[in-house]
Amino acid sequence: MASAMKNQAEKAAQFQALHAAQEAFVIPNPWDIGSARLLALAGFKALATSSAGYAFSRGLPDNAVGRAQMIVHLAEIARATDLPVSADLENGFGDAPEECVKTIHLAAQAGVVGGSIEDATGRADEPIYPFEAAVERVRAAVEAARAQPFPFTLTARAENYLCGRPDLDDTIRRLLAYQEAGADVLYAPGLKTREEIAAVVNALERPVNVLMGLQGVLLSVDELQSMGVRRVSVGGSLARAALGAFLRAAHEIRDEGTFNYTKDATSGNELNESFATAERKWPTPG
Amino acid sequence: MASAMKNQAEKAAQFQALHAAQEAFVIPNPWDIGSARLLALAGFKALATSSAGYAFSRGLPDNAVGRAQMIVHLAEIARATDLPVSADLENGFGDAPEECVKTIHLAAQAGVVGGSIEDATGRADEPIYPFEAAVERVRAAVEAARAQPFPFTLTARAENYLCGRPDLDDTIRRLLAYQEAGADVLYAPGLKTREEIAAVVNALERPVNVLMGLQGVLLSVDELQSMGVRRVSVGGSLARAALGAFLRAAHEIRDEGTFNYTKDATSGNELNESFATAERKWPTPG
Repeated sequence: MASAMKNQAEKAAQFQALHAAQEAFVIPNPWDIGSARLLALAGFKALATSSAGYAFSRGLPDNAVGRAQMIVHLAEIARATDLPVSADLENGFGDAPEECVKTIHLAAQAGVVGGSIEDATGRADEPIYPFEAAVERVRAAVEAARAQPFPFTLTARAENYLCGRPDLDDTIRRLLAYQEAGADVLYAPGLKTREEIAAVVNALERPVNVLMGLQGVLLSVDELQSMGVRRVSVGGSLARAALGAFLRAAHEIRDEGTFNYTKDATSGNELNESFATAERKWPTPG
Repeated sequence: MASAMKNQAEKAAQFQALHAAQEAFVIPNPWDIGSARLLALAGFKALATSSAGYAFSRGLPDNAVGRAQMIVHLAEIARATDLPVSADLENGFGDAPEECVKTIHLAAQAGVVGGSIEDATGRADEPIYPFEAAVERVRAAVEAARAQPFPFTLTARAENYLCGRPDLDDTIRRLLAYQEAGADVLYAPGLKTREEIAAVVNALERPVNVLMGLQGVLLSVDELQSMGVRRVSVGGSLARAALGAFLRAAHEIRDEGTFNYTKDATSGNELNESFATAERKWPTPG
């Protein structure tokens, strides 16, 4: 986006500084190059990929994109703008700590400056890795992060709530262990109440990421900041908002045979200008 | 989508039959694999690519995607579903008739069963090819279409209205010449009134495609059918509707620090089911 692209070390330092500041920041989740560029035009300071958002754009359910394809996606998003990008690395694309290590190395080579490793297995019979195995995986990921030639910001995710196990005590116990293992940011997506979010933040020393828009209470960035939350992501919700409007439009065409949805569409001329001009402009939503 | 994928000849015959029927049909325009699969789930009978919709997903203005990248996109959309796909082939990616020929061959190899060649040059000083050159280009494209091992449905587009030249007489003169040159479907995007659409349809013998949702009057599929229109496409408007919701959401986050947009987002569970299950389900828009 800028005339001189920032290098990876500069982006990494910028990303670290965002976490060190007292203010909470939003790290929104694009699903393709266009949505990434529009978020940069809007003035956001960092981007995070979304495994769900990207999978949906490929016509797949979440967690069905393979590692090789996901690395291609990370490279596209990392190159799309001048912003630091944190990657949704799912469970590291493998059970073994060595797979988490390999995934971190590949993600770093693709140009991102951070990434998350989650403790969900992707298997219905045992949805969450046992405690010790989960900590071992984070420890390996931290080592891989430290082995990069720039500070790779590692986020460790506790997935209990997204896997139908809303166990706050176990979630905090895990996040504490992930912090002890060296994770830079702690994250438990799907917390349902203000009190749960506060309990997680108060139990930890390092920056906490909170997910808004998937389930549970919706709080403002200001409210989250006042509770000590440092980073707010939105997962696949921006992609799902886009698909909501798309499905309503397709529904209207199919069921009514009309095209009134186009009144809420962004104009093609504005999008052309946003993507074309050197002084990239922020289009009105339509 | 189906258990046994249709081959290209079957899709081509299916596409021809849609044009031969007395009823008008909508050929909506996805911009990625996910939107293509959702349109197939909705029950549409054919799909058309959109140069604008795809360019925006790549963070580029319309007509800025190169031929090689566009062919990759066509292959993805052609494989995404069991529906026949018509490709937006812009100006054939070159001024010379030979470039139109090459583009038709590459598109057919990528799996689409039809495509459009337009008479816009992409240059500000001379936005529309001179009459004779434009006809020569269509003639070459028709020969390339006939050279395929299946019936390739060639659409010829007259771009006067999209290039700031709302000259109905010249548009009809061109479409008549493109019909004479052998084009299967005639198309003048951007017609502004019901009367202009009727004049175009009445002047031609072959099926006419009408674009809804870019500029001009919005008519229903029933109204268009009663006027003799055979095919209705929506260009980049579905992509722009999705981006409208996305931009409104990004705007809300940036300006209000809130996440109320998520109430209109399609649920992740529904999208996961739609993309995962054998009995693919049509998700509610949210």
